[in-house]
Amino acid sequence: MTTPDPHTTDHGNLIHTQGVTAPLGFRAAGIAAGIKASGKPDLALVLNEGPEYAAAGVFTSNKVKAAPVLWSQQVLKSGRVRAVILNSGGANACTGPGGFQDTHKTAEELAAALSNWGTETGAGEVAVCSTGLIGDRLPMDKLIPAITEIVHEMGGGMSGGSDAAHAIMTTDTVPKESAFHHEDKWNVGGMAKGAGMLAPSLATMLVVLTTDAVATPAQLDEALRKATKYTFDRLDVDGSCSTNDTVLLLANGASGVAPSQQDLDDAVFTVCDDLAAQLMADAEGVTKRVRVTVSGAATEDEALVAARAVARDSLVKTALFGSDPNWGRVLAAVGIAPVTLDPDRIAVSFNGNPVCVDSVGAPGAREVDLSGADIDVLIELNVGEGTATVRTTDLSHAYVEENSAYSS
Amino acid sequence: MTTPDPHTTDHGNLIHTQGVTAPLGFRAAGIAAGIKASGKPDLALVLNEGPEYAAAGVFTSNKVKAAPVLWSQQVLKSGRVRAVILNSGGANACTGPGGFQDTHKTAEELAAALSNWGTETGAGEVAVCSTGLIGDRLPMDKLIPAITEIVHEMGGGMSGGSDAAHAIMTTDTVPKESAFHHEDKWNVGGMAKGAGMLAPSLATMLVVLTTDAVATPAQLDEALRKATKYTFDRLDVDGSCSTNDTVLLLANGASGVAPSQQDLDDAVFTVCDDLAAQLMADAEGVTKRVRVTVSGAATEDEALVAARAVARDSLVKTALFGSDPNWGRVLAAVGIAPVTLDPDRIAVSFNGNPVCVDSVGAPGAREVDLSGADIDVLIELNVGEGTATVRTTDLSHAYVEENSAYSS
Repeated sequence: MTTPDPHTTDHGNLIHTQGVTAPLGFRAAGIAAGIKASGKPDLALVLNEGPEYAAAGVFTSNKVKAAPVLWSQQVLKSGRVRAVILNSGGANACTGPGGFQDTHKTAEELAAALSNWGTETGAGEVAVCSTGLIGDRLPMDKLIPAITEIVHEMGGGMSGGSDAAHAIMTTDTVPKESAFHHEDKWNVGGMAKGAGMLAPSLATMLVVLTTDAVATPAQLDEALRKATKYTFDRLDVDGSCSTNDTVLLLANGASGVAPSQQDLDDAVFTVCDDLAAQLMADAEGVTKRVRVTVSGAATEDEALVAARAVARDSLVKTALFGSDPNWGRVLAAVGIAPVTLDPDRIAVSFNGNPVCVDSVGAPGAREVDLSGADIDVLIELNVGEGTATVRTTDLSHAYVEENSAYSS
Repeated sequence: MTTPDPHTTDHGNLIHTQGVTAPLGFRAAGIAAGIKASGKPDLALVLNEGPEYAAAGVFTSNKVKAAPVLWSQQVLKSGRVRAVILNSGGANACTGPGGFQDTHKTAEELAAALSNWGTETGAGEVAVCSTGLIGDRLPMDKLIPAITEIVHEMGGGMSGGSDAAHAIMTTDTVPKESAFHHEDKWNVGGMAKGAGMLAPSLATMLVVLTTDAVATPAQLDEALRKATKYTFDRLDVDGSCSTNDTVLLLANGASGVAPSQQDLDDAVFTVCDDLAAQLMADAEGVTKRVRVTVSGAATEDEALVAARAVARDSLVKTALFGSDPNWGRVLAAVGIAPVTLDPDRIAVSFNGNPVCVDSVGAPGAREVDLSGADIDVLIELNVGEGTATVRTTDLSHAYVEENSAYSS
């Protein structure tokens, strides 16, 4: 489902083995601070070395927001971010005023450590992200000394970006990185963590994107919102809906190139789309990578609503886990969606094989082979021109196993 | 979770071992027609012997409606039903005009068979219900001869009702029956089948209720809508949302007693509530019976929306399967619901143990014992007076197993 690597587009190359340090002027690091009981890496840092510090962010729409989200939303209002510090091993969500003070303290400590290191930084220029179990305070006695340590660990090359991508993993089995090198000599890089993303809850998704393009905060904001709308927000269900979901885009202008808004939009989209595909492929307990497309809806919004209704349907998802071309469940799921449809004119195909035409089974529908890892579900409503695609996964034993034993 | 049996209420007794033939003047039967490959019972009949034939029905809100639903909705418009014929082993949904003709033919054949048997009946007085796999035509060559056979099998005693309750089972492990005997010498009986009911899709739910009270179709309709709103519609998610869901209430006045609307409402509710509890307890792959209550919402509607958001959340349901008091997932789920809330004032308790107060973990929250089969989740939003309860289940390995191998 991910694009081949390296992948040549019209205007550049996409490379999966590079991440946030692929653009010029960014450093990163990842270390084990001791937050995770396992001793695995759990603290990451991304530093923008300038000369500019423009930034934009998109945050969870969940009304219950973790302390680092509340903090970073304030930081991003200035459109200026110098560094992002991220921890796994604890979400710092539902931790009250004390948890918010921990986030504030983390930003202050990093600002002080960076200033000591020679990069004058204020706490208000530091974004903070956290992921892990909701409801527990972070072990600040371990985090504080690790902040000084990680500043000294920062590398400018690929290894720094890779270390950071590893340190934000929770139940992810592989780190997710992507970088796009534009032919006009500017770059966008990114890293992501996700994992549990079955309907209707998305496990925390953290994404940090970097670019050495010259761009204003407003330009970054436009590019980021366009890209997330069609990538992370269409990954399964409600997109950003954990307490901690955060997507950040930092730009330093180090390339000296100021791309057009369209070129910036395209490059940010390319990296986000690639990271979204990697997130889906590594979702908890996934055995199938599923794309649900609804076409012929009254509007694009209705197509999206209908696609999400199918993508979050447990009976559809368990059927796909069983490689069962049970198209009746798809019709039952789309019939619940609050969209315009003619119940006698729906068509469904699996991987290009028609299984239902005019809401009645097609010949051979029960024999369609869905044993492969990728399943494309196309639902044609035949009432208009609206189209939308949602990425999702099957519902497997492994999903139940992983999520029934998370906090205990 | 079900009420004790026998259970004495203020005005009568509830008995689980009696069903649709508990009221006077109803006959029922259940036989194996050969629709199911397993050879198990798959055809049921409920006959109202009069003297009155008042009826009301509630049907799925799914836009994709099975042929028997389309047929029975027309029949119910007259407010008069003499017999209900139900089959398992095939939903007759998404079967096009041919499938509708099969339903019509089934009603005609039953009307003819009943007329031959001595009860003059028109096809327009016969409601039809089907349940099973979506998308396949019914084997009419087996169904037609079985219709004559089942008319001759009808019994007036308890065994007929029990046979009928067995014949509508699909993945149900036990038949569901309930009867309420009012102290004023009139009765309400019922049978149900359900089984798969995990968010967001409800496997087909079929319910037939009978009463020997004297009541008009309008009175029955009012009693049935009130009862379903608080029972079947609050069983997990969207209530009636499969292609085939049907709840019917038949009244014959055989007791000669015309209860007040309030007494009728109460009795119908009592039987529906008991059947809903039985449906939940036998849902596919259930290891936990869960009641999610939201209180202190701005309105009752908002309480219901929030309770459903939690009840359908896969991460909450897998945590409950693991007996994990992971209250953070409850907060994350309620935070997605489109309702008024103060993210800093939410309280959660499991089985009466506070685990979260003012959106922060309570002491001992991680040690709460949820190893029992019944879990009550109470979420207090503290913004108003609205309260609602939804019944749901956990998300287990067995659920995945059962639903990934259904049609194949």
